[in-house]
Amino acid sequence: MLRLYDYLVSGNGYKVRLLLHQLEIPFERVELDILKGETRTPAFLARNPNGRIPTLELEDGTCLAESNAILWYLAEGTRYLPSDRLARARVLQWMFFEQYSHEPNIATLRFWTHAGLLAERAAWVPEKQRWGVAALEVMDAHLRDRPFFVGADYTIADIALYAYTHVAEEGGFALAPYAAIRAWVARVAAQPRHVPITRA
Amino acid sequence: MLRLYDYLVSGNGYKVRLLLHQLEIPFERVELDILKGETRTPAFLARNPNGRIPTLELEDGTCLAESNAILWYLAEGTRYLPSDRLARARVLQWMFFEQYSHEPNIATLRFWTHAGLLAERAAWVPEKQRWGVAALEVMDAHLRDRPFFVGADYTIADIALYAYTHVAEEGGFALAPYAAIRAWVARVAAQPRHVPITRA
Repeated sequence: MLRLYDYLVSGNGYKVRLLLHQLEIPFERVELDILKGETRTPAFLARNPNGRIPTLELEDGTCLAESNAILWYLAEGTRYLPSDRLARARVLQWMFFEQYSHEPNIATLRFWTHAGLLAERAAWVPEKQRWGVAALEVMDAHLRDRPFFVGADYTIADIALYAYTHVAEEGGFALAPYAAIRAWVARVAAQPRHVPITRA
Repeated sequence: MLRLYDYLVSGNGYKVRLLLHQLEIPFERVELDILKGETRTPAFLARNPNGRIPTLELEDGTCLAESNAILWYLAEGTRYLPSDRLARARVLQWMFFEQYSHEPNIATLRFWTHAGLLAERAAWVPEKQRWGVAALEVMDAHLRDRPFFVGADYTIADIALYAYTHVAEEGGFALAPYAAIRAWVARVAAQPRHVPITRA
């Protein structure tokens, strides 16, 4: 059985959990508390030398890291990843956008809020707010005349961007100004076998 | 002919230039000075709403953004991207590592040095130094018993990580402690049709 090293609060972990549920692939979940250093132990660093969750352990013990690389691995050959060359590159474009322009701002402010680090890191907050809003604006404009990020169907690009967008308000980002994002969030949540971020 | 919106100093742009040269695909290069706001004009934002280079314009006018997504698009079906499912996911794992754990630290300090922004952003520098060193340590350990990042051959994972690693010293990161990285840098530079970052 697949084993997922995970942290329930993490949107990056949620991406993988959500896709596994939608693919109806059974998996064992190992919860690691990143606030207690459980991803920096020698045992875990042997599985992922970069010391981060999610990390997926395959049946033969091989470990794969980076949430969006895991999504790609699991989605290959399924309805969640298109077969057309340009559409596949476009899925990757949005997943790299997510990890570079979205997650370091929107997920980080949510995490700092959750972990009580906002005051200590106050100097960094305005910059992350500014770039997080910029990412939301790019997403909202893109979604104004499209149901999903790439083509007509729900793909792993949507899963990657949904994970931290639908809880962006927990990091202080209002979604009220973004009607296209809010409609897309509802479409994603209405997909078959959708599970919430709180579902282990 | 393919058209690459680019900025010669950029390692992200260099990734695409290098692969295009190695694939012997002719292309037209459009230089945009990001320091002068040339990636924030309405004309360029119509091509990439996220306002970043590199952006690749295909012959039909379609534009593709995000350096590593462009690498994937160009490398599909060539020797630079493996065909095995796990190896492909591993290539993505290292490319996401590059954009999340490496580039925001190592490339950013090089850019701030280049653009004269180090003093103004001094509060951010120690954190970026610390995480940049952590990324180099992960890379060096991985390369100690491997010639390239994934499998036995040079892939786009190597191109993605080479771009800012081989010039890391321009951002204040010493490569002297990392013998495995230095040997890998030499192997990458010895690949057929390699071109330097200064080659337009």
